[in-house]
Amino acid sequence: MGGLTYRDAGVDIDKKQGAISRVAALVKGTFTPGVLHEPGSFGGLFDGRFEGLDAPILVATNDGVGTKVRLAVKTGRGRGLGHDIVNHCVNDVLVQGAEPLFFLDYFAASHLDTAVFEDVVAGLAEACGAVGAALLGGETAEMPGVYAEGEFDLVGFLVGLVDRSRLLPRDVVEGDALVAVRSDGLHTNGYSLVNRIVDTQSPDLDADPGDLGESLADALLRSHRSYLGAVKRLRDEVPIHALAHITGGGIRENLPRVLPDGLGAVVDRSTWTPNPIFTWLASAGGIEREEAWHVFNMGCGLQVVVPAADAERAVRVLQAGGDDAWVAGRVEKGEGVRLTG
Amino acid sequence: MGGLTYRDAGVDIDKKQGAISRVAALVKGTFTPGVLHEPGSFGGLFDGRFEGLDAPILVATNDGVGTKVRLAVKTGRGRGLGHDIVNHCVNDVLVQGAEPLFFLDYFAASHLDTAVFEDVVAGLAEACGAVGAALLGGETAEMPGVYAEGEFDLVGFLVGLVDRSRLLPRDVVEGDALVAVRSDGLHTNGYSLVNRIVDTQSPDLDADPGDLGESLADALLRSHRSYLGAVKRLRDEVPIHALAHITGGGIRENLPRVLPDGLGAVVDRSTWTPNPIFTWLASAGGIEREEAWHVFNMGCGLQVVVPAADAERAVRVLQAGGDDAWVAGRVEKGEGVRLTG
Repeated sequence: MGGLTYRDAGVDIDKKQGAISRVAALVKGTFTPGVLHEPGSFGGLFDGRFEGLDAPILVATNDGVGTKVRLAVKTGRGRGLGHDIVNHCVNDVLVQGAEPLFFLDYFAASHLDTAVFEDVVAGLAEACGAVGAALLGGETAEMPGVYAEGEFDLVGFLVGLVDRSRLLPRDVVEGDALVAVRSDGLHTNGYSLVNRIVDTQSPDLDADPGDLGESLADALLRSHRSYLGAVKRLRDEVPIHALAHITGGGIRENLPRVLPDGLGAVVDRSTWTPNPIFTWLASAGGIEREEAWHVFNMGCGLQVVVPAADAERAVRVLQAGGDDAWVAGRVEKGEGVRLTG
Repeated sequence: MGGLTYRDAGVDIDKKQGAISRVAALVKGTFTPGVLHEPGSFGGLFDGRFEGLDAPILVATNDGVGTKVRLAVKTGRGRGLGHDIVNHCVNDVLVQGAEPLFFLDYFAASHLDTAVFEDVVAGLAEACGAVGAALLGGETAEMPGVYAEGEFDLVGFLVGLVDRSRLLPRDVVEGDALVAVRSDGLHTNGYSLVNRIVDTQSPDLDADPGDLGESLADALLRSHRSYLGAVKRLRDEVPIHALAHITGGGIRENLPRVLPDGLGAVVDRSTWTPNPIFTWLASAGGIEREEAWHVFNMGCGLQVVVPAADAERAVRVLQAGGDDAWVAGRVEKGEGVRLTG
């Protein structure tokens, strides 16, 4: 009696199992016909017969929500993070032409707050359901001493599928147009800078600091959107040559990842106005303009490369689907991205 | 000039990119013929034509190394953690009959220690190479404020492949034998308890506290082994009905995961002696016997369910391959696991 137990060491297996069982129905609700297992098995099973495809290619990606978690913890909003990580991963496979098959999550904290955990998983399940990804598995860990007290990390892993004939990028040539699609906000990038500003200036997160049209917390924590619907609508109407998901490093670092050797791009920043939250951040943080464009997406979350002759039509198709889209530049000889305007 | 930068906020993109480029060759060294992409793309590409299989099934799993990282940080040993997480994931798909296709890692810290990071990735690459898994991608994150200072987390995602005809478990019946295979040590489970003992008692990690035959640090940090080779040897000789990877929760929680409804098992603990490290931990920590068996694998990292008539042959095949293996029990009517002896 009274010997040292796992629970004494900060790990409460029963509490964790209780939380997992409470979200099981939400997880199961995301299961697509490809899912072959029941929860609880050592690995998630997914049908690998990709019928109707000539040359199926799996596209795998993983990412975390970064220090956006700190702001979510501070404001008690976990659900949006579930959407953030799923959609971040969806967009990363989408730019290679793939659609999501299944997703796995990793949630770790110094100590498990079951209410936060269940809120996050509810968001994961909602986001997976919206894009047709099965939430195939996950891991939940209590790691006392590794995480700062009260903090947690959320990581996602997604596998998508594309037929080789639809793989992107393809056929990008000099003169192709760049069509920009509006982001919903910061997505999941630049939050260490945001946290620095919030930590040092302690703005009222529940108030609108000026012309955001919403509270600062709402603007800062708006979820990373998926571009899956927009791209599916567009690809039926216009030949897509490439897609770039504008994440950490901004347009300058992400757009070149889908351009062939010998080609660069010019992006005219005067073709759009960044969402107000970026203007507020740059001002509140005293962030130099070029640094802001290197850290944030600045209102453009996706760049679509299409033949120049199709650019206006692409904009119309995207707008008809409810997206804010515009011609933002073109592919040119050279390398890297020139930001003008 | 002098505006707030991302680097000021604790995120050094150049340092991270430098470290990633230094390990690129190791990563590329793991690439199997199925890999279709170059590093740097938004997602890793893997050939989804699984020729020669009637009904290919993907098996996906993810896990972390848990608080074993704290002990690794304390003793400056990152490489073994790379082996730990790869082999943990390999074993989790292996018990469903699958062999690994590709692996992705997530490494996050409050601040990136490039030497530790490169050591960990070297271990990942070694372990992936040993089991034929392509290290297809990964994410490295600096998250100031989320992780405790100096700590990091390491998470792995693995996708394996199995033909439906080889899926496990299958055909488990009353009377089947349980063949146990020796673990190398704690694998990746129970470290919050280990850390509690180390933190409160401050044993000399570089010394042998008694009869370990090695230093305490060597015994505690021994890498999670893969059972892939053992199982591949065995399955050519003996019909395998089920495999259970003994992870968190010990034999009692993991073995039932592969037994059909209406069947349980009896495991006779007198058939083996736990590795000395478990005896030391139980004694040093004053851990009750049943609690120790619930937290640790106690020397048995894999349970193999085979027809009773094949049990002795299974033991001989495993031993001929260099494994310590023995008949440890049998499947019986009922539910759960009875630990006797």
